[in-house]
Amino acid sequence: MTALLLHEDPRSGNCYKIRLTAAHVGARLERRAYDILAGETRTPAFLAEVNPDGRIPVLQIGTLLLPESNAACWYLAEGSPLVPADPFTRADMLRWMFWEQYSHEPNIATLRFWLRFVGEAMLTENQRAAIPGKRAAGEAALRLLDRHLATREWLAGDALSLADLCLFAYTHVAEEGGFHLAPFPNVGRWLTAIAAHPAHLVMDA
Amino acid sequence: MTALLLHEDPRSGNCYKIRLTAAHVGARLERRAYDILAGETRTPAFLAEVNPDGRIPVLQIGTLLLPESNAACWYLAEGSPLVPADPFTRADMLRWMFWEQYSHEPNIATLRFWLRFVGEAMLTENQRAAIPGKRAAGEAALRLLDRHLATREWLAGDALSLADLCLFAYTHVAEEGGFHLAPFPNVGRWLTAIAAHPAHLVMDA
Repeated sequence: MTALLLHEDPRSGNCYKIRLTAAHVGARLERRAYDILAGETRTPAFLAEVNPDGRIPVLQIGTLLLPESNAACWYLAEGSPLVPADPFTRADMLRWMFWEQYSHEPNIATLRFWLRFVGEAMLTENQRAAIPGKRAAGEAALRLLDRHLATREWLAGDALSLADLCLFAYTHVAEEGGFHLAPFPNVGRWLTAIAAHPAHLVMDA
Repeated sequence: MTALLLHEDPRSGNCYKIRLTAAHVGARLERRAYDILAGETRTPAFLAEVNPDGRIPVLQIGTLLLPESNAACWYLAEGSPLVPADPFTRADMLRWMFWEQYSHEPNIATLRFWLRFVGEAMLTENQRAAIPGKRAAGEAALRLLDRHLATREWLAGDALSLADLCLFAYTHVAEEGGFHLAPFPNVGRWLTAIAAHPAHLVMDA
């Protein structure tokens, strides 16, 4: 099998998703860590050799480079039970993964990054001004998840899929971004069910 | 074949993507139009029957509802030549589609919506404050596309894929958001090639 190398910052939920998916499908990943806060993904070498976009994660497959966390998860999971066989359910799984990148990650992950890792005192004025909007949008995302999970066990179809793993990554640490999960009991039950899976991997493993 | 109904606002590039994909694969779509600016996607009926997230597009497949533009495009295109057969190229196609939703659409599509449809005078103070950041991020997205297309004809693999159609939607109207495309000649060549395809459908068709 082609060697798999994950270029990552271990604190990033987007990187964790890929490790979690790899654990579920039994893929072995080598890991190379970069400190985002120290600018290690903006060096000329990183931009030239890993990702001209200056972002992690990037999954390296032999010499091929695959940025974007959810695309990397897809690559690892395709052909496994994590990707539903039914065409509509497969598209519905992707629907939640696109929704994650548009409506969940930019709010919940960004506030976690700003408040837990950058520190409120170090934020720019524009970042500080964006907090209330991101707080409201992140809460709306959690409400939508909770409502969806009120009548279903998993996000897409009737089994655990990649959508659940991708959404688990930042939802289970949302409190680090100042979000309260207590008002969302269906989300809580769903998080517990994912973490109870025999193949589960915790974020700081 | 199951009836396909697109819940859309015809001015939205996210809705156009789906019509463009349908034209490429020869799928027949019925269309139902909603005026976003008049709040027609926030009515109790829309929230209850079409999408609790209050957003279009939603692709309705018989009685099944599929929000998220790129997921709807995937549903229509799977099994067609728009979805590459090679596993890495397929994941790389999805990589550009996730990138579109995270790094391109929130900047280029949002500025087009604010400046062309809402009108600068009607923006909130927070929206106005967000313009310079979105301008810079949108330009960075165009630069990344242009750099990628400097050495390749299409975004993923060596043939037109769904990634090209999904990125075409808002890139070809970026000037309506105040972006200049002249500095990005590779993007210009790529847009021309997509529009020259025999199955192409223009946005206001």
